[in-house]
Amino acid sequence: MTRPIALVTDFGESDWFVAAMKGVILSVNPGAAIVDISHNIPAGGISAAAFTLLVCHSYFPKGTIFVAVVDPGVGSSRAAIAVKAGPYFFVGPDNGVLSPVIDNYAKPELRALRNPKFFLKNVSATFHGRDIFAPVAAHLSKGVAFEKLGPKIKDIVRLKIPLAQEADNKTTGRILYIDHFGNAITNIQSSLVSGRIKHVFVKGRKVPIVSCYADVDEGKFLAVKGSCGFLEISVNKGNAAKKIKLKIGDKVEIT
Amino acid sequence: MTRPIALVTDFGESDWFVAAMKGVILSVNPGAAIVDISHNIPAGGISAAAFTLLVCHSYFPKGTIFVAVVDPGVGSSRAAIAVKAGPYFFVGPDNGVLSPVIDNYAKPELRALRNPKFFLKNVSATFHGRDIFAPVAAHLSKGVAFEKLGPKIKDIVRLKIPLAQEADNKTTGRILYIDHFGNAITNIQSSLVSGRIKHVFVKGRKVPIVSCYADVDEGKFLAVKGSCGFLEISVNKGNAAKKIKLKIGDKVEIT
Amino acid sequence: MTRPIALVTDFGESDWFVAAMKGVILSVNPGAAIVDISHNIPAGGISAAAFTLLVCHSYFPKGTIFVAVVDPGVGSSRAAIAVKAGPYFFVGPDNGVLSPVIDNYAKPELRALRNPKFFLKNVSATFHGRDIFAPVAAHLSKGVAFEKLGPKIKDIVRLKIPLAQEADNKTTGRILYIDHFGNAITNIQSSLVSGRIKHVFVKGRKVPIVSCYADVDEGKFLAVKGSCGFLEISVNKGNAAKKIKLKIGDKVEIT
Repeated sequence: MTRPIALVTDFGESDWFVAAMKGVILSVNPGAAIVDISHNIPAGGISAAAFTLLVCHSYFPKGTIFVAVVDPGVGSSRAAIAVKAGPYFFVGPDNGVLSPVIDNYAKPELRALRNPKFFLKNVSATFHGRDIFAPVAAHLSKGVAFEKLGPKIKDIVRLKIPLAQEADNKTTGRILYIDHFGNAITNIQSSLVSGRIKHVFVKGRKVPIVSCYADVDEGKFLAVKGSCGFLEISVNKGNAAKKIKLKIGDKVEIT
Repeated sequence: MTRPIALVTDFGESDWFVAAMKGVILSVNPGAAIVDISHNIPAGGISAAAFTLLVCHSYFPKGTIFVAVVDPGVGSSRAAIAVKAGPYFFVGPDNGVLSPVIDNYAKPELRALRNPKFFLKNVSATFHGRDIFAPVAAHLSKGVAFEKLGPKIKDIVRLKIPLAQEADNKTTGRILYIDHFGNAITNIQSSLVSGRIKHVFVKGRKVPIVSCYADVDEGKFLAVKGSCGFLEISVNKGNAAKKIKLKIGDKVEIT
Repeated sequence: MTRPIALVTDFGESDWFVAAMKGVILSVNPGAAIVDISHNIPAGGISAAAFTLLVCHSYFPKGTIFVAVVDPGVGSSRAAIAVKAGPYFFVGPDNGVLSPVIDNYAKPELRALRNPKFFLKNVSATFHGRDIFAPVAAHLSKGVAFEKLGPKIKDIVRLKIPLAQEADNKTTGRILYIDHFGNAITNIQSSLVSGRIKHVFVKGRKVPIVSCYADVDEGKFLAVKGSCGFLEISVNKGNAAKKIKLKIGDKVEIT
């Protein structure tokens, strides 16, 4: 048995940090299938990592173990946790990074990582990704029973990804994430955008809601029901965020 | 049976897009061997992705499935295609990205991806990499018969990578690609550079053709028969493109 | 039998160079487990690659084959080598990149790569990563006997990573490496930092030695015994190197 392991960190791609984690994983489970989600989460960007996990995790096979290491409190009293939620496992620091994805599942099983049997022998004060989270994930990937990792805990640090609010026939949302192409992903769930709604308003600009990028001329703004379940603001063959300096938190409205 | 899957996209390495594709692939074929070619193709850079595939594909094992997702027309009427050419499979949008590599092989088999059995259940309008190309590649990697993917088609969108022209004892070429080191890869095939030719001219500069970087002093310009079959312009332990602002399309001549 | 292969290069992540190496590896050993250590070593950065190998290699499984391709002298008379040292194998150019990691092991076995049976048929003058090092590593990963790679050699090019000096109750060190977070890794081994030593001095600044980042207020400087065995200078939730323009070679003292 081997369950895939998927990694999301703020380690960047220049240093050896991710590689050290992978070396540890392969030392425990030589047949592990390891997938990089992203290592370019902004340093300390707990919300960005949480959102990333939220929108991609369900495309992974059942049994996948997600390891999130965005961990500015490493070495302090913050707990290290593992969660069984739906068909998945999640491993990381108890700082909110796992909370939004777990909220999708009823009755998640929360455990504190307290069994040093599954850690490296020497645990540093600054790199629990390598010394705790990687070996724990590797043992899980080999089929170690979840309850062996440590005691049940009642709750974890919560982080809410705020969803758009409807009031008086108006939905007011915010930009949640800006991707590599400059598409601005809002917190307006696509399900709120009925067929009668034809436009979205952002920064004083009226943007048509269409089906795909090519529905407007090159260089023009558009909004689409995006691939992760939220309304997105884009420019056909362009970079919407750069063009009008969109940033996370900017207001977006539909009426 | 499992055939390797190699991915080239313009998705960048910060978001979850590549990971979502890999999650989908592993969901279909848990034993898939996935290789990243590059995810740093410039946004919409169909030519750069086409060149990349052209110069590296033949180093992969027979049976490899190449998935190219540089797809600004996603969701529009552009077709989704798969091609069997020589010992390889290619999957991607019908926008020219697959054309130069396929031109290396006689009688490629061209098919439109029209069998939704091999897609995700819900196909978004903006992310066919995840919803169509990844699952199709994963099914191919498990050995699904190529003809099941969809009907044969007669032709695909063509993109030509222009090769250098010889006339009046002069070969006039162009810079095709600039790599990470600042080496400028020309479209002058190494086979055109006979032993009698000792120099190349670029931006008014006479550059000696040598065997390796160390054949000139540090900081000096040189040209070599490069590792992908074309003449390249370099600086020993330096960055040729930065030093004299070379860019794609610049003229290069040998006499 | 398959031994993992770990790659460190200065190839960057935009071109197809790493992918060509992986294609070659999979062509020789379809079941190879390949790990990227880093491809963002500065161009020609032999010391950075050597340090990277030094600090992460021991987290990999026994038998791992490390391939280091930082190779500005490619195609010249510099030798291509492989080394068996402790439980590991190392493959790369003979330019010092392998020397610091090998110095950790008694009686390393040094060999010149001279058996073309394990190379690609056509060896280019500019890309031995693809044509020599990758296929040699792939053959090793399948269990080819080490002595078949080529003759024993007596010595290799040496590169010393200078460690901090103690004199007159004062330890004078230098910054060796600056990581993605702006942490400055010094060459002061953690073992030199006894409990009585409470501060480190850098750029006229007195920095407290603490146990973890959170031991000081946000934005404040601290030093910790870092995860790779050296004293590091950091800012809690900040970037120490940017804040006071630390660079490799800067002096660091403890008294």
